[in-house]
Amino acid sequence: MADNLTAVVYGPKDFRLENLERPEPGEKEVQISVQSCGICATDVKIYRYAKLTGLDIEMPFILGHEASGIVTKLGKEVTSLKLGDRVAAEPWRICRYCDLCKSGNYNLCNVKNLGKCLARYVVLPEDFCHKIPEHIDFETAALAEPLSVAIRICTRAGIKLGDHVLVLGSGTIGIFTMQTAKCMGAASVTITDCLSERLVHAKRLGADNTFLVKEQSIPELVDELAKLIGKKPDVVIECAGAKPTIELGMKITKPTGCLLVAGLGPSRIEIPLFETLLSEIDIRGSLAYTNNYPRALNLLSTGKVNIKGMITHRFPLEKVEDAMKLFEENPKDLVKIIIDCSVE
Amino acid sequence: MADNLTAVVYGPKDFRLENLERPEPGEKEVQISVQSCGICATDVKIYRYAKLTGLDIEMPFILGHEASGIVTKLGKEVTSLKLGDRVAAEPWRICRYCDLCKSGNYNLCNVKNLGKCLARYVVLPEDFCHKIPEHIDFETAALAEPLSVAIRICTRAGIKLGDHVLVLGSGTIGIFTMQTAKCMGAASVTITDCLSERLVHAKRLGADNTFLVKEQSIPELVDELAKLIGKKPDVVIECAGAKPTIELGMKITKPTGCLLVAGLGPSRIEIPLFETLLSEIDIRGSLAYTNNYPRALNLLSTGKVNIKGMITHRFPLEKVEDAMKLFEENPKDLVKIIIDCSVE
Amino acid sequence: MADNLTAVVYGPKDFRLENLERPEPGEKEVQISVQSCGICATDVKIYRYAKLTGLDIEMPFILGHEASGIVTKLGKEVTSLKLGDRVAAEPWRICRYCDLCKSGNYNLCNVKNLGKCLARYVVLPEDFCHKIPEHIDFETAALAEPLSVAIRICTRAGIKLGDHVLVLGSGTIGIFTMQTAKCMGAASVTITDCLSERLVHAKRLGADNTFLVKEQSIPELVDELAKLIGKKPDVVIECAGAKPTIELGMKITKPTGCLLVAGLGPSRIEIPLFETLLSEIDIRGSLAYTNNYPRALNLLSTGKVNIKGMITHRFPLEKVEDAMKLFEENPKDLVKIIIDCSVE
Amino acid sequence: MADNLTAVVYGPKDFRLENLERPEPGEKEVQISVQSCGICATDVKIYRYAKLTGLDIEMPFILGHEASGIVTKLGKEVTSLKLGDRVAAEPWRICRYCDLCKSGNYNLCNVKNLGKCLARYVVLPEDFCHKIPEHIDFETAALAEPLSVAIRICTRAGIKLGDHVLVLGSGTIGIFTMQTAKCMGAASVTITDCLSERLVHAKRLGADNTFLVKEQSIPELVDELAKLIGKKPDVVIECAGAKPTIELGMKITKPTGCLLVAGLGPSRIEIPLFETLLSEIDIRGSLAYTNNYPRALNLLSTGKVNIKGMITHRFPLEKVEDAMKLFEENPKDLVKIIIDCSVE
Repeated sequence: MADNLTAVVYGPKDFRLENLERPEPGEKEVQISVQSCGICATDVKIYRYAKLTGLDIEMPFILGHEASGIVTKLGKEVTSLKLGDRVAAEPWRICRYCDLCKSGNYNLCNVKNLGKCLARYVVLPEDFCHKIPEHIDFETAALAEPLSVAIRICTRAGIKLGDHVLVLGSGTIGIFTMQTAKCMGAASVTITDCLSERLVHAKRLGADNTFLVKEQSIPELVDELAKLIGKKPDVVIECAGAKPTIELGMKITKPTGCLLVAGLGPSRIEIPLFETLLSEIDIRGSLAYTNNYPRALNLLSTGKVNIKGMITHRFPLEKVEDAMKLFEENPKDLVKIIIDCSVE
Repeated sequence: MADNLTAVVYGPKDFRLENLERPEPGEKEVQISVQSCGICATDVKIYRYAKLTGLDIEMPFILGHEASGIVTKLGKEVTSLKLGDRVAAEPWRICRYCDLCKSGNYNLCNVKNLGKCLARYVVLPEDFCHKIPEHIDFETAALAEPLSVAIRICTRAGIKLGDHVLVLGSGTIGIFTMQTAKCMGAASVTITDCLSERLVHAKRLGADNTFLVKEQSIPELVDELAKLIGKKPDVVIECAGAKPTIELGMKITKPTGCLLVAGLGPSRIEIPLFETLLSEIDIRGSLAYTNNYPRALNLLSTGKVNIKGMITHRFPLEKVEDAMKLFEENPKDLVKIIIDCSVE
Repeated sequence: MADNLTAVVYGPKDFRLENLERPEPGEKEVQISVQSCGICATDVKIYRYAKLTGLDIEMPFILGHEASGIVTKLGKEVTSLKLGDRVAAEPWRICRYCDLCKSGNYNLCNVKNLGKCLARYVVLPEDFCHKIPEHIDFETAALAEPLSVAIRICTRAGIKLGDHVLVLGSGTIGIFTMQTAKCMGAASVTITDCLSERLVHAKRLGADNTFLVKEQSIPELVDELAKLIGKKPDVVIECAGAKPTIELGMKITKPTGCLLVAGLGPSRIEIPLFETLLSEIDIRGSLAYTNNYPRALNLLSTGKVNIKGMITHRFPLEKVEDAMKLFEENPKDLVKIIIDCSVE
Repeated sequence: MADNLTAVVYGPKDFRLENLERPEPGEKEVQISVQSCGICATDVKIYRYAKLTGLDIEMPFILGHEASGIVTKLGKEVTSLKLGDRVAAEPWRICRYCDLCKSGNYNLCNVKNLGKCLARYVVLPEDFCHKIPEHIDFETAALAEPLSVAIRICTRAGIKLGDHVLVLGSGTIGIFTMQTAKCMGAASVTITDCLSERLVHAKRLGADNTFLVKEQSIPELVDELAKLIGKKPDVVIECAGAKPTIELGMKITKPTGCLLVAGLGPSRIEIPLFETLLSEIDIRGSLAYTNNYPRALNLLSTGKVNIKGMITHRFPLEKVEDAMKLFEENPKDLVKIIIDCSVE
């Protein structure tokens, strides 16, 4: 039945909502009726540019990787799920045979086939469909994806009990990173942004300190932030993908600390690399997540991560292009957009 | 007695050989009659510029940190050494009270007071004077310093049994890094340089593959080197401190691998940062060494690290400025210069 | 002035309160007027047996290692403290010169000289006297010691965000370990005891699950606890020092997990070692703490660790032997005894 | 065709050589004509007892997990191998879907289905069949299995450059562990046994020190071995599976070191656990291997691991029971038995 409304990008701003066939599950796969699917900056970049820095994706490309839904069809070898199960969808199609998969780094396998969830129906392997507790709604379950991203960020950054953490940028990933850092025992988490509205929101969701970036120079920011935190932070997490925040991170991280760059920015960037490395500050990145969905769902279902007010906008699947245009306008009150993909 | 001939930098190219008083050892310190002291690029940079990127040093500055010698005076609480002991001198004056010292990172404590060994006499804490076996001469013992640097580089880079390692640059540190990587079980170590003479030397001292860099573009270098190695290397160690080698390292390191930048280069550098970090390649630096001298002396005394032909030039302390000028000229046959600091 | 009332053990149950001279601080040391000092099982074991399993201590021995107080005298090189400062006293006299000290493991240096704080006055190095915020009283500050023990336990056990943790034994260390595990992001912490009163207390202080051990066999305990937790725990922390709890830990820890043994028990013990190790379960111990006092004080001063009701008994220094006798009786309502060491 | 001669255990000493059907490869599997297959202590224990401590295996059980052979049939999705390829067979049938598989610990998944290689033909997934270089014969390739075991042992034990390592027991695994430790940069490896013939062999294959255990007490052994090594070893690897060697390991490992127990012994054992753990000595086990075959084949093909004289006995598949009886007799000259499984 060609009733599977799907969000497909064919080229820069060449976006089409198409009615495709429902995908059929393979032996260890399940078909999911998608209920909620978040939109993130990556979706919008693909929509706009039909490509993505550093990742080799091909058009036409089906958007969407923050989904939850209901199991509607079972592959014949599926044992862990049944029809009607409510699941959060970890959106991978990994090979399970390469060195990356077999050494616990499946997040680097077959990245270009991640996602494809902005549709009425999607097929995924059973082990990537995580049952959700009854008291968690589909919108909350969809947030397990960006929260899993934040968990890998914090894990890769090596946050330890008692660390002072600085998060640069208060978007969805910045907020979730701040909250995850606190769950891991950070003594303090300070978060910055250039929009005061976002900082109010971050404060409400648990930030110990918020800091408004205006016209300060990098040395001024280093001084003011170190004073606010009480020392140079042990870990800095850059969630803005911009040259000034990268450079601020390099200058303010304590010797032997870690600067984790979670943001995505221009293909080339001019930075004071040697000075940073001389202080044995590690510079690390983080891509997606492995084995983190259960942790994310635990944080969401126990309320250890507060998501109140995070979903600020909702659209039906039919209006997804409007959602992407809104995202591009970046209004001050925007945090997370969720698309309703359910069959009404 | 003001007979302690000492190499002091007062400003850019303002270098003086001065007869200072012999330094007196504190309670847990010893005075050493320096016998051999190597010269490294850092000494020459301080000689030329009277400063050092990323480290805050003050003039006048006494050069020299690769020394070995004979114990000539004991502080009154010294228990582990006696007069006449032959030692390799680990050139630290750390505080032992700060968080860095107490957490095993003393290499980042009081760095500006490192060294001061290019003199007839130097004073150091007893625990930093490592006894050397009889069959090791003073020149060899002086090499424990750059070898300790290489050991920390390889340790920070996380080299594991079976790794394929690429070393960019065949100077002293590049050579020792190549040899240390092999001692740690690297399946292969490939080393590059733009001088073929250096590669002949590197091959003789144990490199599995050598590669001459000419006019190739970065993508060509990536292709040729990956073909030579048989895959993208697990670990890349940059020992040149230059933009093209940094960028080559970023492009050729395998996903989840490590790019360790050991070279020191310009204060700012334009690089494709985000793409590298998206592959979860860690970028790390390394400064000096902690607790590595015993390991270095073991490698030297057992011959696991081959130093045959590494010391290419020798000067008496009186001629140390000539040595630095030679270093600046960088003749093709230069590997290591050792200064004889002994009283004739 | 011989007015320094001090708790000294001369032999098994040969305990004396002696008026010794006030100790004078060395150059980088301070003298502290002890205000509060906790008593722990180790003190009581030394009091009773005049020795300690696995540690080589000598009689006469001054008890007490959980102290806080006021700085009353400064060594002449002290820079970080001033007279009147209120401090938590990390009770070390380390050498700062051995490999253990220089590699971040000072907790294994000179352990037999730890403590000596059950007195009116004690001398310690300045860097081991940690300033405490005004809103923290001396009794709370004294708890930084057992909390630091718990932090090292949890760090050595490698607790990660989302782990399910089982703590065996609900004494002071068990409680603090449970709370620290939660601060580090444990998805759940289950704690056991054979006294229901202690479990009520543990529940009140934050345990997710409590479990009363009665007459069950080890296999029954494994079944019941795994059912309660929902799976085999990722980390098990044994705080009882008994054969059955060790064995339970070995059987219930998940493959690739960690069994951390924090309790101290009989010198020999019969256990199913090979089976446990075949599942790649690591067995680890933990001794005291390094660099954890600031973390502990942060947890106490922010209230992230709840200590309400933990101090159940108080004695003046003159009555310290009564306190130790009470500890030996082990009444059901006992959690922590604090000795008031202040000059009235 | 029922021409697949196979070594099957039905019960204790109920061993049968049966002609089974040749197994057919699944989609991503290949059929291998086994050429060589080693016998190890595990095979002999299963032959004798029809069970294995700590692992849950079912009878009838096909023996053999140290195999190499020729690819004789391809599953239809196989891409990395072709008919006639010579391969070392990593003997796993893992699920690829569980948490262990997806986190890089596939060695703990489906362990009871490991092996089944003592036959004319065996089927394995393509990614577990590792191509071998032309200059490596099948017997050598079969040794990739015990060498992979040794690599995991040394990796789990955390051997670092400059460590002093003590290996207790000079069987095949002891020898390979000693050699691997040296490849990883151990400053010295000392190996023990109670048979002097084995020590001669170990010395010839690279041990720095050998030590004959006679009637000494544990404290005597600690003294003598520490004197021989020059210090307490950083890492001790127990390859004997016996109480005295375990206890020796506990007493002689340096504080903060690691005791890795690779041997398999009685189900219960009485040991001085608390004292060991108080010194923060980690006790670890190791099971099989993950992702180590390429490393093992590299060590074998480059000659970094010397196997000269390791294969001391050879039998055709038809005589495999004789081989197991010989193994039980444990003659002094026995190191490794290889079974020729080829069709003549």
